[in-house]
Amino acid sequence: MEKIQVGWKKIEEIAGEQGVKTMKEVQDFSPKLAKMAVEHGYGDIYSDDTLDLKQRTLITLSSLISQGDQGTALTFHFKIALRAGLTKEEILEVINHCSGYVGFPKAIASLSIFKKVYSEYENENK
Amino acid sequence: MEKIQVGWKKIEEIAGEQGVKTMKEVQDFSPKLAKMAVEHGYGDIYSDDTLDLKQRTLITLSSLISQGDQGTALTFHFKIALRAGLTKEEILEVINHCSGYVGFPKAIASLSIFKKVYSEYENENK
Amino acid sequence: MEKIQVGWKKIEEIAGEQGVKTMKEVQDFSPKLAKMAVEHGYGDIYSDDTLDLKQRTLITLSSLISQGDQGTALTFHFKIALRAGLTKEEILEVINHCSGYVGFPKAIASLSIFKKVYSEYENENK
Amino acid sequence: MEKIQVGWKKIEEIAGEQGVKTMKEVQDFSPKLAKMAVEHGYGDIYSDDTLDLKQRTLITLSSLISQGDQGTALTFHFKIALRAGLTKEEILEVINHCSGYVGFPKAIASLSIFKKVYSEYENENK
Amino acid sequence: MEKIQVGWKKIEEIAGEQGVKTMKEVQDFSPKLAKMAVEHGYGDIYSDDTLDLKQRTLITLSSLISQGDQGTALTFHFKIALRAGLTKEEILEVINHCSGYVGFPKAIASLSIFKKVYSEYENENK
Amino acid sequence: MEKIQVGWKKIEEIAGEQGVKTMKEVQDFSPKLAKMAVEHGYGDIYSDDTLDLKQRTLITLSSLISQGDQGTALTFHFKIALRAGLTKEEILEVINHCSGYVGFPKAIASLSIFKKVYSEYENENK
Repeated sequence: MEKIQVGWKKIEEIAGEQGVKTMKEVQDFSPKLAKMAVEHGYGDIYSDDTLDLKQRTLITLSSLISQGDQGTALTFHFKIALRAGLTKEEILEVINHCSGYVGFPKAIASLSIFKKVYSEYENENK
Repeated sequence: MEKIQVGWKKIEEIAGEQGVKTMKEVQDFSPKLAKMAVEHGYGDIYSDDTLDLKQRTLITLSSLISQGDQGTALTFHFKIALRAGLTKEEILEVINHCSGYVGFPKAIASLSIFKKVYSEYENENK
Repeated sequence: MEKIQVGWKKIEEIAGEQGVKTMKEVQDFSPKLAKMAVEHGYGDIYSDDTLDLKQRTLITLSSLISQGDQGTALTFHFKIALRAGLTKEEILEVINHCSGYVGFPKAIASLSIFKKVYSEYENENK
Repeated sequence: MEKIQVGWKKIEEIAGEQGVKTMKEVQDFSPKLAKMAVEHGYGDIYSDDTLDLKQRTLITLSSLISQGDQGTALTFHFKIALRAGLTKEEILEVINHCSGYVGFPKAIASLSIFKKVYSEYENENK
Repeated sequence: MEKIQVGWKKIEEIAGEQGVKTMKEVQDFSPKLAKMAVEHGYGDIYSDDTLDLKQRTLITLSSLISQGDQGTALTFHFKIALRAGLTKEEILEVINHCSGYVGFPKAIASLSIFKKVYSEYENENK
Repeated sequence: MEKIQVGWKKIEEIAGEQGVKTMKEVQDFSPKLAKMAVEHGYGDIYSDDTLDLKQRTLITLSSLISQGDQGTALTFHFKIALRAGLTKEEILEVINHCSGYVGFPKAIASLSIFKKVYSEYENENK
């Protein structure tokens, strides 16, 4: 199986159909950016089992919170975190942890993104 | 036990005597900054067991790589990671993972910091 | 009085009831993040009188403009700045000053946030 | 001709009437910030012919994508890029290129800003 | 007096002969960058008396700490801060304040830069 | 030819033997990071001819200056820029241009990195 196929399969596995759809929208406007993101991000990175999905999710969330992501990527990855089995308390603690490393403004800004994602997630999983 | 004491104990537990010494040097020049870092960073954050030390280390390393830390904090926390039992391969994979989220320059810059830390660590633990 | 109480009192003093309400909303979803922000941010930092409130506000605004805050924290702290007695001209000059240190895009982005805050502030204080 | 006039002329040349209008709005609320942006940004920088407009646009877009600009400046400069004759494919490739240097989240976030700008541009130029 | 002259005079006033020398070294290799920094940074910004020098120094230090400046600019501006009459305690408190807004790693990294500057300053002013 | 081979060939073409050696050092300590950087960075990105090498160099330099790269990557890419035929004046103007977008501290910090690279380059090409 080629790396691009490995990547798409991995996205479906960790982000579900909704995740595939999001990446397909990137692909519609920029086929090459999607190809690189899928091959490099999911074929090379997420498919390597040196770290497991929960661990990778912690790393991703911390990176996004630390760079001040305004929602596009954080929304996508908070959902992956919940699907991967991280609890609300664990995700809140990732944000708490980051407050010491990047300060309160980025922590609080990402909290309000998570609040929205979590509320939707709860509604969908009632 | 007061939070400040909890914090100092936690630093000793995870960063060893060398870690305590580093924080004492901060304290010598800026008692208040050290006090806040110990209370907030180690008393509040690392002492909470919602996440374990390995998980916290992944979050910390990702935050530092993502903000382009030039060595002061990365050196300190790469050592904590090795002490916490993360293998060389796992730490390299944290850096690999971050390359997709913050690009290759920050990944490669932190690689060379880790290379130095790892080489010292190996010498000390022969 | 415990540090957490000192912190809440300080928020009320500098940010008014509206500021307390904003922090209570953080607390509703993440009690620990609010606790750390109140204790560390307001109990430790704003309650120290080595620098006065106007000086602290200049430091805070500069930090937020420099890290590209998208509004959550800048809105909160522009209000505090106006309440602290900084004039419109002084706050505009903070933004002007920052343009040389972080470039025009972040200066102009924060200008449009301040424009909204100032317009609301004027309406409330007619 | 004074530098401020050179600057305003340059904005009109590269960003059109719409660009002048945007800068006039900055000027209405903060005359000094507009003055500095026009003199320094357009009188000093864009008016220098060591680099041509297409080259300057590549530099500007890369800087904005790399600092995680959330739209105010990127929208303005994507329009300038299209007016300068950069094709959709070339602009997409700027974003692709940046993905390796700042990671996929900032690349994808700027892609969605460009998508909006491009769609408007196409409608206006039918 | 032209803006460039106003700027050079202002540098001499606030940064002394050593400050002028530093900017002349920039000028030797890049006359235009020096010209823009002097005109925009010192002619436009520092020469405006809406904010006084102590206030501007607080804003500058906060911006540099927040963007993770590794020493070139922080060294220059810590010296200006001391010359402007800010005490060691006040400057340490700027760093303390920033720890809540950008996290401990950047605060501690800038502390060690300040430690060096302060030690030199003390030796020169015995 | 596989993408990894395309990538290594591209590095040799644009960065010469010295560039290959630098990437081989990354490979010695972290084979996977080197593989991803070569495939993604050079196989996918630099090998695409939608933009030419001079254009890509402008984009890269702007990204590195904007993210405050402290030298590892800027040194590598200033050399590529000179090899690609960008003149000293053009590279200085990239830095000048960036000063308006990210402020003077990052511009001046990257100037001193370029000064060193340029001085070595001149010595080697006498």
